Amino acid sequence: MRVLVLGGDGFCGWPTSLYLSDRGHDITIIDNLSRRKIDIDLEVESLTPIRPISERLAAWGEVSGREIGFVNLDLATEYDRLVGVLEGIRPEAVVHFAEQRAAPYSMRTTHTKRYTVDNNVRATHNLLTALSATGIDASLVHLGTMGVYGYGWSGSAPIPEGYLTVKVPTPDGEIEREILHPANPGSVYHMTKTLDQLMFSFYAKNDGLRITDLHQGIVWGTQTPQTARDERLINRFDYDGDYGTVLNRFLMQAAVGHPLTVHGTGGQTRAFIHIRDTVRCIEIAVTHPPKDASRVRILNQITESHRVLDLAKMVADVMGADIAYLPNPRREADENDLQVRNDQFLALGLEPTTLSEGLLEEGKQVAARYAGRADPTKIVCRSVWKAGMETASDLITKLPAQA
Amino acid sequence: MRVLVLGGDGFCGWPTSLYLSDRGHDITIIDNLSRRKIDIDLEVESLTPIRPISERLAAWGEVSGREIGFVNLDLATEYDRLVGVLEGIRPEAVVHFAEQRAAPYSMRTTHTKRYTVDNNVRATHNLLTALSATGIDASLVHLGTMGVYGYGWSGSAPIPEGYLTVKVPTPDGEIEREILHPANPGSVYHMTKTLDQLMFSFYAKNDGLRITDLHQGIVWGTQTPQTARDERLINRFDYDGDYGTVLNRFLMQAAVGHPLTVHGTGGQTRAFIHIRDTVRCIEIAVTHPPKDASRVRILNQITESHRVLDLAKMVADVMGADIAYLPNPRREADENDLQVRNDQFLALGLEPTTLSEGLLEEGKQVAARYAGRADPTKIVCRSVWKAGMETASDLITKLPAQA
Repeated sequence: MRVLVLGGDGFCGWPTSLYLSDRGHDITIIDNLSRRKIDIDLEVESLTPIRPISERLAAWGEVSGREIGFVNLDLATEYDRLVGVLEGIRPEAVVHFAEQRAAPYSMRTTHTKRYTVDNNVRATHNLLTALSATGIDASLVHLGTMGVYGYGWSGSAPIPEGYLTVKVPTPDGEIEREILHPANPGSVYHMTKTLDQLMFSFYAKNDGLRITDLHQGIVWGTQTPQTARDERLINRFDYDGDYGTVLNRFLMQAAVGHPLTVHGTGGQTRAFIHIRDTVRCIEIAVTHPPKDASRVRILNQITESHRVLDLAKMVADVMGADIAYLPNPRREADENDLQVRNDQFLALGLEPTTLSEGLLEEGKQVAARYAGRADPTKIVCRSVWKAGMETASDLITKLPAQA
Repeated sequence: MRVLVLGGDGFCGWPTSLYLSDRGHDITIIDNLSRRKIDIDLEVESLTPIRPISERLAAWGEVSGREIGFVNLDLATEYDRLVGVLEGIRPEAVVHFAEQRAAPYSMRTTHTKRYTVDNNVRATHNLLTALSATGIDASLVHLGTMGVYGYGWSGSAPIPEGYLTVKVPTPDGEIEREILHPANPGSVYHMTKTLDQLMFSFYAKNDGLRITDLHQGIVWGTQTPQTARDERLINRFDYDGDYGTVLNRFLMQAAVGHPLTVHGTGGQTRAFIHIRDTVRCIEIAVTHPPKDASRVRILNQITESHRVLDLAKMVADVMGADIAYLPNPRREADENDLQVRNDQFLALGLEPTTLSEGLLEEGKQVAARYAGRADPTKIVCRSVWKAGMETASDLITKLPAQA
């Protein structure tokens, strides 16, 4: 299939592009390289040394014999160029990763709040408008987030896949209605994904666009079999307080001799997925487009749920690390239970990669290999959800000598 | 109270600014005059001759002895200037009308779809971010729309004011949850108001902003006691297929000798409010800010519901006009019932101005007075919801000689 991968240079987009290419699909990446540029502002880098996009693509050509196209284009502002690319390629599927994806970054400053909304909303809406205007019948696969549901809203009921059947009182008795699960976003970033949902819903209904929205859990892991084939293909490994995700941060912290940073009580339960499964899920979604174009298909892209503190304890036990309890800069419940349905991906053939010592060890090894690149002053989370919230000082400012 | 009126040059914003000023509030208008500029692109004008904003403001000073401030500022793009105005004025309330407000215009072209989203979402979000960042504790009153609810979703139950209590199934039995009424927008414009709702909800919860969202029905009427005090203060009267609202269009059509244009069967039932009540509702909302800052207060700003065909027949009977049935360029149900709760405004003292022959006649008189300014080729609605939908030819291209 001809597949356009929007945001194909990022943490999920890059391994997805390689995986789809490896599976025989014809891939073109659109990316404005914004993720790399944000690193410049934050004065931080991926722990793994990522190569320029053209070198990445050339390396992939060398090791795979397959070509991936690339267009440097800003989806939020270059609508006409987007239309040109769509008309030139006429993709059968478009995978949309092209959004600012870090909750802490989205809460960091008024600039980053505004950037997150302006970029994410316009990127999604431009894409929807362009697909409708060109009449290109590509199925659209969008990376959403479990965070649209919030935590603890539905009592003991597992979180359904996007839709919820509820009873509504009327003078003639209760009626059943299927609704989009109510939005309970926990940050400006998550909020933009709830805005996406309403835009998808409208363009599916009005324009018949075929849309799959993937509500993904927290991704962990770094490498896939494709990114591991050459060091120039290595995937990002974010460890900083804004872009690092919790489990990868613990692995990096264990690798560099930093205490494991639990912000808050650690009672937060979240859903997780390994990057290897992310890329598989995307291919499943791409190759199984929804049949009903009037209704957005929503799948929960997760494989397991864990309490943050349990993860910290597991990593601490296995790898010999201390745990540091730090103030939580987020406004969220101290503790929550979480069960999530993921029946649809299982039915479509996903075989979950779950937490194992082997995979944790692999993650730690990747981190250890590049430990010398770490800046320990970037580890503590300090983007607060509201002005005046407490944050922690650096726990260490120099890395211990590595073994 | 010091009140900032965003979009204070528009159809609802202008009479609201004058009314609030007349009631003794200290008003500053922010407007980028976009509504006037869109008229230039559409090659149409308000039926009533509206004067430049500085002349309007000078005339108000003359007749009332009261000054209204004005800042020409684009909310969607001039964030820093917005912050400057907020810090300079330190308003106690902000009334937010500054959004593209026509459903047909929002569906007209890819440009207008994108403009509607880019403008409305960024204007609202910039405002929320600025209120949060400056710490100015102004209550925010936003003009939303009944169209966020859609029509016919809740069976025989009246549409509640924003929130709905539903029963959610869980393994431990049903639980009750109050949810934002599910969004069922009928156009890109209406969609932006559903996006606003989610942004309001987040900023109320996270930042404690005090927000009132007014879900307004279709406005009719032109003049208020304030705009009628001098011809230079006259309010807009839009009659074109994009910006004209249904009842005002019927009155104008009757006045100029054009058949009354019913697009579709006329079985659509909609909620209405007279412009005189709009301005009263805004003052009620401004002077009664919500007590609970963590939850958006939502009020339905409507006074009555009518079927479009019943309105056409009433105007046709009273004023002697024909009815023309034209293709409906919108994707909407042919027919629907509608009951709407508006208990909160009634409890806060609103005395509804309902449909009466006197008010209809007044509307027709305003239209008749300026009939010579009408362009009959702008009357038929032709902005289609999806490419290829049928539209009607002009019914007349020259105005009949006026009596």
